[in-house]
Amino acid sequence: MRHQYYEQLDRIIDDLVRVTDRVRRSVGEATSALLDTDVPTAERVISAGGDIETAVDEIEERALVLLATQQPVATDLRQLVATLRMVADLQRMSALAVHVAKIARRRAPEAAVPSPVRPLIGDMARVGDAMIASASRIVAGRDLDAAAELELEDDRMDRLRRDLFRVLLDSDWEHGVDTAIDLALLGRYYERIGDHAVSMGRRVVFLVTGEMPVG
Amino acid sequence: MRHQYYEQLDRIIDDLVRVTDRVRRSVGEATSALLDTDVPTAERVISAGGDIETAVDEIEERALVLLATQQPVATDLRQLVATLRMVADLQRMSALAVHVAKIARRRAPEAAVPSPVRPLIGDMARVGDAMIASASRIVAGRDLDAAAELELEDDRMDRLRRDLFRVLLDSDWEHGVDTAIDLALLGRYYERIGDHAVSMGRRVVFLVTGEMPVG
Repeated sequence: MRHQYYEQLDRIIDDLVRVTDRVRRSVGEATSALLDTDVPTAERVISAGGDIETAVDEIEERALVLLATQQPVATDLRQLVATLRMVADLQRMSALAVHVAKIARRRAPEAAVPSPVRPLIGDMARVGDAMIASASRIVAGRDLDAAAELELEDDRMDRLRRDLFRVLLDSDWEHGVDTAIDLALLGRYYERIGDHAVSMGRRVVFLVTGEMPVG
Repeated sequence: MRHQYYEQLDRIIDDLVRVTDRVRRSVGEATSALLDTDVPTAERVISAGGDIETAVDEIEERALVLLATQQPVATDLRQLVATLRMVADLQRMSALAVHVAKIARRRAPEAAVPSPVRPLIGDMARVGDAMIASASRIVAGRDLDAAAELELEDDRMDRLRRDLFRVLLDSDWEHGVDTAIDLALLGRYYERIGDHAVSMGRRVVFLVTGEMPVG
């Protein structure tokens, strides 16, 4: 019975890692759609949002069935509850990738990101990507070194968001209010994607150490 | 044993309703701070964020203990898992109220919301308030009429967000890029507060009917 429990839990965690990697790809594609003004890629991210939601719902359902049938206690219980929380993080990250793709699609054929801020948005996307990769590694292997890295990447993301806002608020800004608003929202979306990666990482750290890292 | 279980579950739900009402007050105060450029009130919302987090953590902990010790199955299990998900919604709503308060504090003594958009922001805040009130009623009494209302309020919130963006993007906009960005973020924050209220409502509807309403 216990053996079967761990087997099923392992499969749920494998799927969680797989969906995390799938979400990471969505965020990457959304960024390409944004920076290359690539509408077909934007459409692909938007429609993949539904598939990811289905995959995530399935993981949630299986975690609930496992909870109900095997009635784990202590750490095993916390592990399953953490899984349910991470499922919610993945749902939100996928929705945020869809938001990014929708801005790319709405602004096309115009570029949503004017040249002066392309490096900044590129950096935010890269840090976000690294953060999801770290979260995936942590969930897969309880790699606590990646957790420390994730906190550093989170600081980097915050700095990039502040840099972006400084550019938008500069009196030299000449790309209009509409572009500034889209960029402010894009900055917020990437920051939130990173926040959810941090939240996933912290859930695992908490499971392993019993201590929630101070954010 | 079962009797004790329901007693504890009822207490958890009472506390969930109490924290929902506390979050509702925070959102209301954040709006006052914003519209009246009232820094002390903004500070109060920001520091209340920590108290709400503590209250929410306590509910989560008690739900976990109940899960572990009473090992509910079927509907009882789903109820507890829904509670854990609602706890996450409340955390986010409280964080969003703090974001609103921080914009009010940062812009003071200048008003963050210029006169032409005050009615719109006021309406968003009012709809958001009604949505949290509906969520609270649904959680407290499984009032499914309030759930239908919540979906209508959600549509209203979406329309208000679109109206707000139309004003910000109008070529007559004369309040600068910085104000437009803050307002775009404020619009997003109120919209997300509403989304979390909808998500709480839907969790209860799902418990009662077994069907997730189509969003």
